[in-house]
Amino acid sequence: MVPRLTTALTGPLLELERRILDNDTLVERWLRTQWLEHTPPFYTSVDLRNAGFKLAPVDTNLFPGGFNNLNPAFLPLCVQAAMSAIEKICPEARNLLLIPENHTRNQFYLMNVARLATILHRTGLNVRIGSLLPEITAATTLDLPDGQKLTLEPLKRIGPEGRRLGLEGFDPCAVLLNNDLSGGVPELLQDVNEQFMIPPLWAGWHVRRKSLHFAAYQDVAISFAAEIGIDPWLINPEFEVCGKVNFHERAGEECLAANTDRLLQRMRARYQEYGIESEPFVIVKADAGTYGMGIMTVKDASEVKNLNRKQRNKMAVMIDRYVVGGFYRVNTARGIDENLNAPGMTFKPLAFETGCTLPDAQLDPDAPPNRFYAYGVVARLAMLAASLELERAAPTEQ
Amino acid sequence: MVPRLTTALTGPLLELERRILDNDTLVERWLRTQWLEHTPPFYTSVDLRNAGFKLAPVDTNLFPGGFNNLNPAFLPLCVQAAMSAIEKICPEARNLLLIPENHTRNQFYLMNVARLATILHRTGLNVRIGSLLPEITAATTLDLPDGQKLTLEPLKRIGPEGRRLGLEGFDPCAVLLNNDLSGGVPELLQDVNEQFMIPPLWAGWHVRRKSLHFAAYQDVAISFAAEIGIDPWLINPEFEVCGKVNFHERAGEECLAANTDRLLQRMRARYQEYGIESEPFVIVKADAGTYGMGIMTVKDASEVKNLNRKQRNKMAVMIDRYVVGGFYRVNTARGIDENLNAPGMTFKPLAFETGCTLPDAQLDPDAPPNRFYAYGVVARLAMLAASLELERAAPTEQ
Repeated sequence: MVPRLTTALTGPLLELERRILDNDTLVERWLRTQWLEHTPPFYTSVDLRNAGFKLAPVDTNLFPGGFNNLNPAFLPLCVQAAMSAIEKICPEARNLLLIPENHTRNQFYLMNVARLATILHRTGLNVRIGSLLPEITAATTLDLPDGQKLTLEPLKRIGPEGRRLGLEGFDPCAVLLNNDLSGGVPELLQDVNEQFMIPPLWAGWHVRRKSLHFAAYQDVAISFAAEIGIDPWLINPEFEVCGKVNFHERAGEECLAANTDRLLQRMRARYQEYGIESEPFVIVKADAGTYGMGIMTVKDASEVKNLNRKQRNKMAVMIDRYVVGGFYRVNTARGIDENLNAPGMTFKPLAFETGCTLPDAQLDPDAPPNRFYAYGVVARLAMLAASLELERAAPTEQ
Repeated sequence: MVPRLTTALTGPLLELERRILDNDTLVERWLRTQWLEHTPPFYTSVDLRNAGFKLAPVDTNLFPGGFNNLNPAFLPLCVQAAMSAIEKICPEARNLLLIPENHTRNQFYLMNVARLATILHRTGLNVRIGSLLPEITAATTLDLPDGQKLTLEPLKRIGPEGRRLGLEGFDPCAVLLNNDLSGGVPELLQDVNEQFMIPPLWAGWHVRRKSLHFAAYQDVAISFAAEIGIDPWLINPEFEVCGKVNFHERAGEECLAANTDRLLQRMRARYQEYGIESEPFVIVKADAGTYGMGIMTVKDASEVKNLNRKQRNKMAVMIDRYVVGGFYRVNTARGIDENLNAPGMTFKPLAFETGCTLPDAQLDPDAPPNRFYAYGVVARLAMLAASLELERAAPTEQ
């Protein structure tokens, strides 16, 4: 079952989807040639917002959660894409260490970790989970609601000089982070230089800035839009950046107010141009960090009550450069919050029932296979932006 | 629906499947490392015979037919695998020319070509079909039984020096052969040196010899068997080669009789060792060529009437090194004939209902996901053998 968003079936979005469908060969080839120059992240998830007249990424996560929310029918796609990714990064790998977030009570997240471990195991890797949690002092097996089991083991330094990460009796050649390092790089992970670290440490939120990602995305959106002849605004989220903002010390509020005004004015002009009735709104986010940290919405009270808009979050999950599936997040409780993994949250994932790779020219642009194809294309643009962002952020000695 | 072959659920095969399942991580890693040294063919199909006590390839086709027989649910896997293959061979390709067999009345084959063209189009290629048939003097669109349409166009030489293959108004950078060149390389295809030719011309049956393939397969089977600790005989078809045999001139019959005897004696010894009741039989094939050319079975009349054995043909289809699906061929009319594409043949394809990449340790070794995994593993061994075979056959100046 897929939510029907009636407003999304009219206006500019249909034109955008039609343009993407009519140019699908061009789109695929353009993306393929981009990947000749840029290396896709090992895995990515992208939150898309479909406003009905505009389709754009709102969050690009390099430590994706939500594999457990994908349609199980897509599992073979995940395995095949993971084989391709492993082959490129560490083809000789035998043992892989997966380091998750420090959630032990968040069943949603733990089911995601278990599913991810299953996918990686299927590529021919011994996969074990190394926990950063001090309370995990011995192998601890958790029974998950979906019947999966997950064994967390204490992460430790190994090797003659202690420059490797491992577990008791487990020396991995590759380490896969599913921990976004929002709190910085734990000492235990520092100065590890004998193993593949995937993704690189500078993909963590202690280094990443949303403003740099969306700047990179803007470059991608402009050249893609030129390629298929659309207005980049239809796929590009407008943004402005402020420096330090501290709501308690009331620092930076002027910048925030001014930028919000500037954005709202630009948007009103565009809405007029496209004859869009809706009232524009701005999402204020911290430039670093995930989990909807410091998120607020600047819009009319009427908008706050509009649950339809709250249903318009899509999540597309990618491994290597392949879109392996997606799901809707229907969250009446926290509609504008991109937070997928917060403990106790109430969103209900609705897996896409068809894939994102098989548009059908015989169907309408808004038929699920075609709409999902458009979602997959925009999600891949965001992934491409993330790879530009990581290239720009890479330490010069790398 | 999958035929249940009761005899296949007992005896050595279960042990083989169990061993493959128990070592799945080792199996996948071993295959992954093999692909570091050997390049998989662009696409392959492998006929497997499951005798109930032995599982082995009987035919490895480098110009696969039967994409139309795959479960449609596997189409996204086909597209993803094709993207990976195209990326490796000709990532910048825009136009791809597909050259099929010269069948215009074989609807089975034409549906396969149409499905293959669809898969390739989805990777971001303009795909057109160039026919070698002299009667195709202009673009000819055929309506196929499954609703697909297929347009054949006259193949021609293009370019200043006529060293390129193309169509009227279509200059491809890559040429994909789905024609096995059994009749040799047509003059029109000779001395083409400005385009990617996939697979290379020496993959055609004018060069290939089954004996060289099975010699390569024997090498692969022996090292794989050592890796997971099984008797290679369980996956390796015994074979002997004769030189020129001409049944009309009665030439080579002595060699044929002697080799058949030798094989039957070896097999009887093995059957005894494994306590196998069935009566051994030998399939006599031409060393070159496909379509079951010159195939005969040397066994008891009782065997000829055994329709169960006739149902034991599997076909696994691969793109790049990924198993994208498979199907059973149930053919009571021509049970021991590997011929998939002969006009008017009576086989009924039964698509595998699950993939070949997701074994489930919780299920019995003979449960479809596990059995199909074992089929996929043996099929990949045959594909690996084909890549060894092509390396050995490659012109030295290559």
